[in-house]
Amino acid sequence: MKYSRLFSKTSKTVPHDADSANARLLAQAGFIHQEIAGVYTFLPLGLKVLRNIEQIIREAMEAVGGQEILMPAMTPKSVWKQTDRWDHFDALFRFEGMGDKEYALGATHEEIVTPLAKEYAFSYKDFPFAVFQIQNKFRNEPRAKSGILRGREFAMKDLYSFHTSEKDLDKYYEEVKKAYLKLFERLGFDPQITYTTYASGGTFSQFSHEFQVLSEVGEDTIYTCAKCKLAVNKEIIDKQNSCPECGNSDLKEKKGIEVGNIFKLGTKFSDAFNFKYTDEDGKQKPVIMGCYGVGSSRVMGSIVEVFNDEKGIIWPKSVAPYQVHLVSLGKDGVVFKAADKLYEKLSKAGIDTLYDNRDLGAGVKLADADLIGIPVRLVVSSRTLESDSAEWKERDKKEAENVKLTEIEKKIKVYYS
Amino acid sequence: MKYSRLFSKTSKTVPHDADSANARLLAQAGFIHQEIAGVYTFLPLGLKVLRNIEQIIREAMEAVGGQEILMPAMTPKSVWKQTDRWDHFDALFRFEGMGDKEYALGATHEEIVTPLAKEYAFSYKDFPFAVFQIQNKFRNEPRAKSGILRGREFAMKDLYSFHTSEKDLDKYYEEVKKAYLKLFERLGFDPQITYTTYASGGTFSQFSHEFQVLSEVGEDTIYTCAKCKLAVNKEIIDKQNSCPECGNSDLKEKKGIEVGNIFKLGTKFSDAFNFKYTDEDGKQKPVIMGCYGVGSSRVMGSIVEVFNDEKGIIWPKSVAPYQVHLVSLGKDGVVFKAADKLYEKLSKAGIDTLYDNRDLGAGVKLADADLIGIPVRLVVSSRTLESDSAEWKERDKKEAENVKLTEIEKKIKVYYS
Repeated sequence: MKYSRLFSKTSKTVPHDADSANARLLAQAGFIHQEIAGVYTFLPLGLKVLRNIEQIIREAMEAVGGQEILMPAMTPKSVWKQTDRWDHFDALFRFEGMGDKEYALGATHEEIVTPLAKEYAFSYKDFPFAVFQIQNKFRNEPRAKSGILRGREFAMKDLYSFHTSEKDLDKYYEEVKKAYLKLFERLGFDPQITYTTYASGGTFSQFSHEFQVLSEVGEDTIYTCAKCKLAVNKEIIDKQNSCPECGNSDLKEKKGIEVGNIFKLGTKFSDAFNFKYTDEDGKQKPVIMGCYGVGSSRVMGSIVEVFNDEKGIIWPKSVAPYQVHLVSLGKDGVVFKAADKLYEKLSKAGIDTLYDNRDLGAGVKLADADLIGIPVRLVVSSRTLESDSAEWKERDKKEAENVKLTEIEKKIKVYYS
Repeated sequence: MKYSRLFSKTSKTVPHDADSANARLLAQAGFIHQEIAGVYTFLPLGLKVLRNIEQIIREAMEAVGGQEILMPAMTPKSVWKQTDRWDHFDALFRFEGMGDKEYALGATHEEIVTPLAKEYAFSYKDFPFAVFQIQNKFRNEPRAKSGILRGREFAMKDLYSFHTSEKDLDKYYEEVKKAYLKLFERLGFDPQITYTTYASGGTFSQFSHEFQVLSEVGEDTIYTCAKCKLAVNKEIIDKQNSCPECGNSDLKEKKGIEVGNIFKLGTKFSDAFNFKYTDEDGKQKPVIMGCYGVGSSRVMGSIVEVFNDEKGIIWPKSVAPYQVHLVSLGKDGVVFKAADKLYEKLSKAGIDTLYDNRDLGAGVKLADADLIGIPVRLVVSSRTLESDSAEWKERDKKEAENVKLTEIEKKIKVYYS
């Protein structure tokens, strides 16, 4: 993509509501645009990152046997009445349609997925199974804040699992727990800053688990155990004031962003919808459920909170909007021609390249490249062409080096392999 | 995917609201599940088809220079007030959030995309450009009907183009018109049944154009010209009662499903949001806009309306949920083993296969395959194994043939090439 053609450009204006690095940098670099507090448009660069994140999440969910479906955002009042959440779930956006029909916007989907699963699973032979979706959720938040960390409309992956026994749920729950840690690592977070965190289990289980990424802007206060790489959320520190794994009571207080959470639902929803299965002896028994969320747009915001410097964003390789940011410098026709040629060559080789071919000064173009934060920057100038090279600089490194034009394609492929 | 593991199964129950082939067949074959009238969950098979359709649409939009973005479903009251549609657009779902804030669910996105584009385009040099999204729309329909043909929440692609002159819009409009015809052909519709149809242009242009697929369940009445392959929508037949191309007045009345529409918006929305550009002489001029829709879930329903028989759906190759439906027949362990082996082989070769390995009678399994409608069915039985073969049958053909197990992979690749 030629930067001159790209719909969204960088901006020097700091958004007035930029209370966090992700709100400021994603808007200034042209990834997102705020429409209402807590409601954003994903611009071409931002949508590419979001889709990359979603694809990594999708693969992780398929690896634990999840089948992808897509439930609607419009949900009927009746199902929320049935679980007694219509009147008690503050975050529900409720609205009316013709014929005095009442609806809620999906803030979560247990109320839809439980009666849905009941249509297709009857016998113990049909269990266990898990379905997931990647879809926008809506929450009537009193205060939207921190850019795409806490929004009123946001992208989320929600997985639901269905079992015939607590034991089977426990086994699957541990499997997903492990898969989540792998997932967050693949999304770019250093395992050293991602904490599986004990949190409140609600009425039906002792604990749930959150996945907290350490960050100063995090809304959550957690207490980490240096030995076990586990943490305890402040909300349950009275109940659990030492490491649940090793008993260590020397816990450190930290701030974290909750990027995922997993929850044993037990029979809370299957009871409400009378979802039972027939066991080996022909008896009817209640289905046991678990649910597993990852906020995909929140992950994007969290990545920016964790990976940035004074110049801009530093995208991890796995989710970057483009693989290479190619910049031509100077007014020399020979340079433009050489950069054009390199762009063509990279494109043909299937290397996703953002090419800044604008007739602007070096300062602006290099600052934009740093702000946007693509992992590899290639600069073509009269000076680099003297040695038939382009300057190679990785966004997270200080040094740059000249690389022969003939060697670049190979070097990119090695870098991303 | 092993059919025994697939979340959604076929059902003998005809849905009570099945007023059309797509509502009945898609529900019975396990592609969709109705949650509310006009609101559906896409089950694993259905989501695969929808994603295939969306990818074909995406490629067509990128080919006409469209850049993909994703706007929110939640939109503020203020922008609808600015175009005077808050009080006059009946299909808007309106709702309230905390702090007495009022919102509408996106029924269309001119009100969002126009002020958005204004943030990034200023000079004539920034034009023309086009952005599109693929996203769920919400409409407060008095009566949802015909399955996924007319829903209250439905998937849609909407492209918006921005120009500095009527002439430039006209040129782009013709380009998209051609791209649409190619697109619908790629989606599986015979060009013989897809009509570019003159329709009302609203207040700002003489005509708009719809793309109508002939079908008895279509809501639209159109008048077709046999010579020019054009049609006129009944809504403007008083204004235009002969073929706009050749003047032929011997038009035939037909029923059609509107799968796409394109519209010259002129300055209607740029005026409302005061979106101007600076021309070569430094003068401020209003931006000229066009919009171009395709209902992606409606396309899915239309395909089923056009491609079905008494046994079930007949998916076109380009959008089918799987490439091959593999069926093992009989109780013979040797057969199951051979079918397992073939499934492994096809999967390894990257051939997307639905494998019905259930221990059920031939009648049920073959009927399910016909209902689901995957283009190629392969049957492995004791009889076919006698000649080291599987039975190859295409869903839209009567005849079947035996194909050597060693030849199948190649034959599938040729079929889909």
